[in-house]
Amino acid sequence: MSWGDEISWNEEGLIPAVAQDVATGRVLTLAWMNRDALKASVEEGRAVYWSRSRAKLWRKGEESGHIQTIKEVRIDCDADAILLLVDQVGGIACHTGHERCFYRVLEDGCWNTTDPVLRRPTDIYGEFDSKSEDFK
Amino acid sequence: MSWGDEISWNEEGLIPAVAQDVATGRVLTLAWMNRDALKASVEEGRAVYWSRSRAKLWRKGEESGHIQTIKEVRIDCDADAILLLVDQVGGIACHTGHERCFYRVLEDGCWNTTDPVLRRPTDIYGEFDSKSEDFK
Repeated sequence: MSWGDEISWNEEGLIPAVAQDVATGRVLTLAWMNRDALKASVEEGRAVYWSRSRAKLWRKGEESGHIQTIKEVRIDCDADAILLLVDQVGGIACHTGHERCFYRVLEDGCWNTTDPVLRRPTDIYGEFDSKSEDFK
Repeated sequence: MSWGDEISWNEEGLIPAVAQDVATGRVLTLAWMNRDALKASVEEGRAVYWSRSRAKLWRKGEESGHIQTIKEVRIDCDADAILLLVDQVGGIACHTGHERCFYRVLEDGCWNTTDPVLRRPTDIYGEFDSKSEDFK
């Protein structure tokens, strides 16, 4: 994984990774990867992140089934940000049941929700604390 | 700016901001904002970032003319990432002269450049150190 040595990992050994839906072009999520997460993502062809709250690898969709299948891995000019082009399985990237995590827009000083909940979180995960990162 | 109080700023008072071209859907840049940068972005309708290397506000395009005019400001579910939909003035977001900072893709263990340089940095900025964040 010599290509990993070219990455400017931050002081915590992490890099932000943006996932974009290859079909719709929508930006779905921003999450974090450490070296193991990026290696696993490339090897497995699916997005694997580093959960900062749980301090462990987080295979996106491991609970929900909403896997992100990787079509392309890009890096930016400073090698301190990753862009994934993905197929979003199930069409839902966010643990809230929205298509994308960026479902709120700033309008007149308020963060207004513009996108519908496609599936209720309780239907995805069962009863859960929607604030918890344990269910993604 | 009470909407700023809803943001989960990191321990440095920053949030990552992804800029996406509203016309092409391409993800152009990932940069950082502090509270002042986001406030200025919203007030001025153009992307203003926080330069971590220079420790000052950085009005994107201030040297190059490659301003990002903001069409939409979005926030994610955890309120710890921003998405900007922008018009990229000049069609060049990256200080290297590429359309986007994500001009390299991982292929067979190498970060291969897929996108052309649209304008040489020396033509954009004059002679400069391409590693420097002083020219963006």
